[in-house]
Amino acid sequence: MIASPIQPFYAMEILGRAQAIEAQGGSVCHLEIGEPGGKPAPQVIEAVRQCLERPMGYTSAKGMPALRDRLSGYYRDHHGVEVSPERIMVTMGSSSGFILTFLAGFAPGQRIAVTRPGYPAYLNILSSLNLPSVEIPVSPANGWKLTAADIAAAYERSPFEGLLVASPANPTGAVLDRDELAAIIACCDRLGVRFISDEIYHNLNYTGRDTSALEFSHDHVVINSFSKYYCMTGWRIGWLVMREDLIRRAEMMAQSLFISASSVSQCAALAALDARAVYDERRESYARNRQVLADGLKGLGFKLAEPSDGAFYAYVDASPFTNDTMDFCMRMLETAGVAATPGQDFDRIDGHKYVRFSYAGKLETIEMALDRMAGFLQR
Amino acid sequence: MIASPIQPFYAMEILGRAQAIEAQGGSVCHLEIGEPGGKPAPQVIEAVRQCLERPMGYTSAKGMPALRDRLSGYYRDHHGVEVSPERIMVTMGSSSGFILTFLAGFAPGQRIAVTRPGYPAYLNILSSLNLPSVEIPVSPANGWKLTAADIAAAYERSPFEGLLVASPANPTGAVLDRDELAAIIACCDRLGVRFISDEIYHNLNYTGRDTSALEFSHDHVVINSFSKYYCMTGWRIGWLVMREDLIRRAEMMAQSLFISASSVSQCAALAALDARAVYDERRESYARNRQVLADGLKGLGFKLAEPSDGAFYAYVDASPFTNDTMDFCMRMLETAGVAATPGQDFDRIDGHKYVRFSYAGKLETIEMALDRMAGFLQR
Repeated sequence: MIASPIQPFYAMEILGRAQAIEAQGGSVCHLEIGEPGGKPAPQVIEAVRQCLERPMGYTSAKGMPALRDRLSGYYRDHHGVEVSPERIMVTMGSSSGFILTFLAGFAPGQRIAVTRPGYPAYLNILSSLNLPSVEIPVSPANGWKLTAADIAAAYERSPFEGLLVASPANPTGAVLDRDELAAIIACCDRLGVRFISDEIYHNLNYTGRDTSALEFSHDHVVINSFSKYYCMTGWRIGWLVMREDLIRRAEMMAQSLFISASSVSQCAALAALDARAVYDERRESYARNRQVLADGLKGLGFKLAEPSDGAFYAYVDASPFTNDTMDFCMRMLETAGVAATPGQDFDRIDGHKYVRFSYAGKLETIEMALDRMAGFLQR
Repeated sequence: MIASPIQPFYAMEILGRAQAIEAQGGSVCHLEIGEPGGKPAPQVIEAVRQCLERPMGYTSAKGMPALRDRLSGYYRDHHGVEVSPERIMVTMGSSSGFILTFLAGFAPGQRIAVTRPGYPAYLNILSSLNLPSVEIPVSPANGWKLTAADIAAAYERSPFEGLLVASPANPTGAVLDRDELAAIIACCDRLGVRFISDEIYHNLNYTGRDTSALEFSHDHVVINSFSKYYCMTGWRIGWLVMREDLIRRAEMMAQSLFISASSVSQCAALAALDARAVYDERRESYARNRQVLADGLKGLGFKLAEPSDGAFYAYVDASPFTNDTMDFCMRMLETAGVAATPGQDFDRIDGHKYVRFSYAGKLETIEMALDRMAGFLQR
C-alpha cells in the first residue's frame, strides 16, 4: 500500500550475516563498517564517571553552552575563523544534523544534490522525508573528486537548491584541497545553490590539512560528528553550524523532533575535544593500515586500489573478479570469512563493480583478511 | 522566504528565562518542565561504569537484542501479552518513535489526529515533516478524556488516517481506563483509522493500572520511553512497537535517519528495567506532591485543580486571575520566581486560560512555589 523507495543499508545487512556466522562459531574479519574499534579516551571515561553522580536532564535543544563554546574554539584554533556558539547546535550524530538541515534549510519540493557514489543515508533520509534529490556522478578518472564542471553540467540537466558534499568522502576517501573546494563553492554561489559541507571525516586526512567550508563564508551549512576521528559512533553525538536565521529555525524544530542530544554523550564529547593526542595516535594506526590494505588489494589484482587521501576506506574496482559485488561480498563472507561492503550501498548504478573495505580496525585483521582473500580469489 | 508554522516550545522559553534569572543570583521554583529530578538508580550507574570499559559502537538499528528481549518480557509480565522482540525497536526517546511512526506508518498526505490540549511536539513534528494534522478538542467537563463520540464527530468534519492518544495524558494527566480505551480503539477500527498509543506516562498512574493498546491488538502502534517513570530524560532512550511489516519499514528508515540509539543509553536502559523498586518509590513521592499541589492551587483560587489521575502535571484554569496565561506565567516568573508553563504550549485556541504545573520535583519546591504564588496573587 505504501510504496517505499528506501533500500536497506547493505553494510548493515552484511554485518547482520557476519554476526550470525560468528554466533555459530565462525570467524569473520570485519572490514564492512566505518567504525573505529577503539574505546573512549581515558579523559572521556573519567568525564562520564563524574556526570553519573548527578541527574542527567534535558539540555537546551541547541546543546550544553560549554560544548558549543568549545566547538567555537575548535574553529578558531583549527581553521582560523570565528564561529559564534549561537550558530552551533549539538546534534545526535551527524544523522540529526542532516534531518535538520534538510527540513530547516529548504522548502518542500526544493532539491538537494549529492555525489554518486556517496554516503547512502543521504538519499535514504531525503526519500524518507519525501524530499526530492539529484545525483551527480563523480569519476574515478578524476580521483572521485567533484568539480565545478560536474556541478554545472548536472544543474543544466536538472536544477537543484542545495548541494551536499563530503570531503574526505565516503566511500572513496577522496579529499578536496582548498582550491578545489573554493571552486565548488564559487560554482554554488553563482548558481544560487546552498552549499552543505559534510565534514565528518575531518582530522582523518593523510596527505594534507582539512579545509572547512566555514573558512569561505558563514552562509554555508556544516555538519560534523564525534563518530569517526573521536571514535564515538555509538554515542550518537555531533554538531551542526548554520546561519543565524536558519539555526533558530532548526532549533525550534529540534525542540520537538529531538528535544536535545544525550546529556551523557554531550559530557563525553566535551572531554573528547581535550583528548586529541589519543585520537591523533589512532590516526597514525589508520595510516599504517591504509598502506597495507592498498598494497595487499593491488597485489590481489583489484583495480583503483591506490591509497585514499582521507577517511578510512578503500573503494576498489573488483571487475577483474565479478560484475556483481553484492554476490561477491556475500560469497567472500560465507566462504572466506571476510566482510566488506558492496558498492551498491553507495552507487545504485555503477556500484555493482566496486567494493568498499574499511581500514579503521586492527592491522592484524586487515592482514588476515588479505590472506583469506588470496585463498578465496584463487578458488 | 520559508514559511514556518512551527511555534517555539514555551516551556523551554520559560526555562531559558528562568535560567537567566538564576544566573543573576535570583531564585526560581521550577514547575515548568516535565522532568523528574532524580539521578539514575544505582544499578544504572553501575551498568554504565561497566560499559565504559569497552568500545561503544553502533548497535543494530533496532537496538541491542538483550534490551528488546527484556522489553518483550515487560509486556508479558505487566500486560499479559506476548510481543515478539522482532516487533520492538529501541529509539532515541519517544521523539524518534514519533518520527518513525509518522514516516513509516503513513503515506504522504495522510492525516494524523491528536487531542487538544496535547503534547505540543506532536503538531510540531507533523508540521516539520510537512504532514497534515487534525485536532480533536477534549473537554474539561469530561475530565479531559477523549471519547469515541469525539473521534466520530471530528472524523465527520475532517477524516484522518491515524489517531495518536496519550494516557496518562500531557498536560492534563487524564487517564483512560480499560473500557474507555477499548471504546476508542473500537471506534478507530470501525473508521479504518490506525491507532497510535503514546504510553510514555505508563507506570505513573495514581488511581489504577495502565492498559496498553497491545492488550487489544497487535496492529496498534505503541510508543514509550525511559524518560518519565525511569527518570532518564537526558539519556534520550525509548522504544517503539509496530506490526512486522511496518517495523521492517521503520528499521530501514532508522538505519539512515538515526543509525541506532546511543549504545551507552541502551546499556543504562537495560539496567533501569531491573531497578523498578527505586522508581516505584519515586512515584510515591510524586503522589504526595500531587495532593499538596492540588490542595494548594485550589486554596489559591485556581479552577479545575482536582488531582490528576496520572503523569505528573496539574493543568488548571487560571481564568479567575487572567485571560492571558503567557503574560501571567512571565509575570509570575519575573516577580515571584515561580516557573510554570502557559497553556498555549498545549492548546493554541483555548490554552490562554490554562497553566500547567509539573509536580515531578521536590515537595519543598512545590511548597515554596505555593507560598510565593500566594503573595503574587494578592498583589
